[in-house]
Amino acid sequence: MLPTMMDTQLSVADLIEYAGSNYSAEEIVSRCVEGGIHRYTYQDCLRRTKKLANALTKLGAKQGQCIATLAWNTYRHIELYYAVTGIGAITHTINPRLFPEQITYIVNHAEDQIVFVDLSFVPILEKISDDLTSVAHFVVMTDRAHMPESQLNLLCYEELIEPESDSYDWPSHREDAPAALCYTSGTTGNPKGVLYTHRSTLLHAYAASQVLQASALNIILPVVPMFHVCAWGIPYMATMVGCKLVLPGAGMDGQSLYELIDNEQADLIVGVPTVWLNLLTYLRAAGEKLTSVKRTLVGGAAAPLSMIREFQEEHDVFLLHGWGMTEMSPLGTVNNMTSAMTKMPLEERYRVQMKQGKPVFGVELKIVDDNNHELPKDGKSFGRLMARGPWIASAYYKSEDKSSWVDGWFDTGDVATLSPDGMMQIVDRSKDVIKSGGEWISSIDLENTALGHDAVSEACVIGVPHPKWNERPLLLVTTHKPTTKESILTFLADKVAKWWLPDDVIFVDELPHNATGKLYKLDLRQQYQDHLQSSEQ
Amino acid sequence: MLPTMMDTQLSVADLIEYAGSNYSAEEIVSRCVEGGIHRYTYQDCLRRTKKLANALTKLGAKQGQCIATLAWNTYRHIELYYAVTGIGAITHTINPRLFPEQITYIVNHAEDQIVFVDLSFVPILEKISDDLTSVAHFVVMTDRAHMPESQLNLLCYEELIEPESDSYDWPSHREDAPAALCYTSGTTGNPKGVLYTHRSTLLHAYAASQVLQASALNIILPVVPMFHVCAWGIPYMATMVGCKLVLPGAGMDGQSLYELIDNEQADLIVGVPTVWLNLLTYLRAAGEKLTSVKRTLVGGAAAPLSMIREFQEEHDVFLLHGWGMTEMSPLGTVNNMTSAMTKMPLEERYRVQMKQGKPVFGVELKIVDDNNHELPKDGKSFGRLMARGPWIASAYYKSEDKSSWVDGWFDTGDVATLSPDGMMQIVDRSKDVIKSGGEWISSIDLENTALGHDAVSEACVIGVPHPKWNERPLLLVTTHKPTTKESILTFLADKVAKWWLPDDVIFVDELPHNATGKLYKLDLRQQYQDHLQSSEQ
Repeated sequence: MLPTMMDTQLSVADLIEYAGSNYSAEEIVSRCVEGGIHRYTYQDCLRRTKKLANALTKLGAKQGQCIATLAWNTYRHIELYYAVTGIGAITHTINPRLFPEQITYIVNHAEDQIVFVDLSFVPILEKISDDLTSVAHFVVMTDRAHMPESQLNLLCYEELIEPESDSYDWPSHREDAPAALCYTSGTTGNPKGVLYTHRSTLLHAYAASQVLQASALNIILPVVPMFHVCAWGIPYMATMVGCKLVLPGAGMDGQSLYELIDNEQADLIVGVPTVWLNLLTYLRAAGEKLTSVKRTLVGGAAAPLSMIREFQEEHDVFLLHGWGMTEMSPLGTVNNMTSAMTKMPLEERYRVQMKQGKPVFGVELKIVDDNNHELPKDGKSFGRLMARGPWIASAYYKSEDKSSWVDGWFDTGDVATLSPDGMMQIVDRSKDVIKSGGEWISSIDLENTALGHDAVSEACVIGVPHPKWNERPLLLVTTHKPTTKESILTFLADKVAKWWLPDDVIFVDELPHNATGKLYKLDLRQQYQDHLQSSEQ
Repeated sequence: MLPTMMDTQLSVADLIEYAGSNYSAEEIVSRCVEGGIHRYTYQDCLRRTKKLANALTKLGAKQGQCIATLAWNTYRHIELYYAVTGIGAITHTINPRLFPEQITYIVNHAEDQIVFVDLSFVPILEKISDDLTSVAHFVVMTDRAHMPESQLNLLCYEELIEPESDSYDWPSHREDAPAALCYTSGTTGNPKGVLYTHRSTLLHAYAASQVLQASALNIILPVVPMFHVCAWGIPYMATMVGCKLVLPGAGMDGQSLYELIDNEQADLIVGVPTVWLNLLTYLRAAGEKLTSVKRTLVGGAAAPLSMIREFQEEHDVFLLHGWGMTEMSPLGTVNNMTSAMTKMPLEERYRVQMKQGKPVFGVELKIVDDNNHELPKDGKSFGRLMARGPWIASAYYKSEDKSSWVDGWFDTGDVATLSPDGMMQIVDRSKDVIKSGGEWISSIDLENTALGHDAVSEACVIGVPHPKWNERPLLLVTTHKPTTKESILTFLADKVAKWWLPDDVIFVDELPHNATGKLYKLDLRQQYQDHLQSSEQ
């Protein structure tokens, strides 16, 4: 049959063309790394993006090459998103919080040709530059007046684009051409690259705008960094709907965020729980309220009940839980308000809000057992969470490792329940769930329950080998007043299933955490691997 | 480069699977053709759609074949949308308001294998059945109790699906496979078919949900018929967001609509101006108010200022102008509220609301002159409106006629202005615009201005040949009180440019209209073609 619909390919450059042409007066406001606030319009942004596209071409950037950024959320980073991908190259955003050796590995693995860097991160480049094998140019994202002293040969962003024409014709390409690259910060092994395409980026942007009901009336402040899964796709979504975008630069502390939110009247703020803990702490101390904000989208880790409550009751802000992964662009689920939730008492609604939400249209989810058999969506069975959809990776970049894919589904590494109405709740990470005699026990559930004991400050549950049950839970706690093992086990006894009760409780002075503040259980599992083999039967 | 993202193909069946699984308890409420109200959930709908898919297979339906509907907006029509397209066949919706000869032409041209028909439209089939060359089965969309007497061999919808299994695995296909077919009701020549694909339908649904900021909290009532450009895509969008859908069946009068809107608490109602005129007239007479409705999406024809005002001031309803075409799936532009509009006095905002709006992301618009040179987007220049995008037709179904496409752009047949911020305003239809000495005059603008004269009931402006200026405007009016040509020309003189003034005013008893109530200018142009050749110089 002959084609009857236009073969229009989805393309990232269309986004900035659209916003620059149709929402020409809407603003992008940035807190500058150099200090002060910068504001301009989408029309200005489009013009400078085209100048940058011409400058990139002059620097020798070619289609399919990677061009890296080490940068905060600012307008120059937005220009790079569109110019680099627009000319047919790949926007490779690097997380500056990685170890220098990891950044070196990533730059070399991606074969980055140019690295664009914010002033804050020039020292990182100075440290690793000798080990970089592919980079031809370093460009500092600032003007001449702020260029740093350096032993590196640094180019200046503003000098580079200033003489260029603001006219540029974006080359055409198929929509499965690569657009952006982001490496996961796995705790084991080298970081793995996820290469997004124009198609995956655009479909994800449509889906994101849909689940957020975003429009040109919104004023969105993404605190989630543009080096972290493309700031969850917010920059692409913002140009698609033409809304005002507010970018916090390096100002991630509570006071800086509050001032920016309040001055710019942001109504949707987006970030991880840690950032909001800082913000809420500041607001409490300063006696300030969020008056413009209506919703906060929270992902990356589960927001605690207390945060959901405080946002709602102190600031009239609805906390919208989301869940995703770097391999998923990242959007998997969003916990939007439903008609059922509108009728619930607040405390009951909060319990629903704690879940990760329903899949965004485009993402299919299922849970499976150890034999990859699908488990029922009954809200109780839990299994390994598998995902499928047009913005989910089918492989890592330049990698033969296919261990995370089974029959065309991506294994998220999470253990979850799915309810009959599609609601997903993360139970545990696959590597942390305890497999006791063929049944699974959630370490997170046990930890949260143990935290209810009035002497427990922090709780950590790990599975350790057991001669009869294969694996059994061990509870490690820090305490702030005297208590006993018996007291804690008695406390737990009527709150969890009998066979979930930890086989032992161990009192420790401190629990180990990783760089993002999460419990780091790998060493503990090794340290206690013989604990139940020897002490109990 | 190896693919890095999953090759997930967009598919219409995924929509009903998604709603049935994730918004299983949300409702579809229908006014039945047999009388009464029917309500069930998306879960019920999914089950019955799968039974229908099995029934269609048993009836011999094959991939790529057309299966027709002659039906109102009801739940059975929704089931057909998903089952027919889901099995890989093509949902061909037929407009029952076409002339019988046109319906015959359409059914034969599409080679429809099965025709599903509502009780109301069985007489149409009886009239034309002898001339249909491809149809194997007629199925009446009702239960056994309501089956009509007929000389035709009619199958019963409910009997057909009742014995079938509610389990069905949708076949996979590429996303450019055909999904649905709709014929334009052109005024000249045979109707032309537009064949939508799975891809165009899904991208359009994402875009529609985005521009409407639709969510599962919405309750949407599409009055626009499912036989008219798939009810502007609302049925696909509703399953994508999981919102309650309210379907008016054959109850298109003001009272029936009001009762359904009010009983079901619809907050978004969708339809053409004529329908809303009836609704508003009813509400005025009955002294009723719309309390649940927040927005009405209006397209198909321009809504008059008085309607925008009455919705806003009497019912607190924001009238959202949209513009599109059958060839565009249909969404081209939507006039959403912008931050600038929120700050305007109401009367000023109404003037902006009268425009057709900004392009939806995905649709590109430009205006061109007679030589296909692009004209500036300055809000003043007007030219032929051209469109491009992934849900815009590149050809008519089984047709060699490419006269509507120029360099990959679709010629909409409208004449429009585009402003620097992307706002589009229709000036006229290409065939109605008057080309006077190289400059264009809008017949619609002149008509609207003439309507301001207190004696004029209806006004019609046509271009007729002129020896010096090529074409000049002629104004035909009906009046409800005595007036003179001079009075009308004097009235117009300070409201339009001097060279826009009609060369003559002709008083007539009646003006001709087409089936949808629009002025029918073709005959008038012929009748008056010598008017200015002979009477003036």
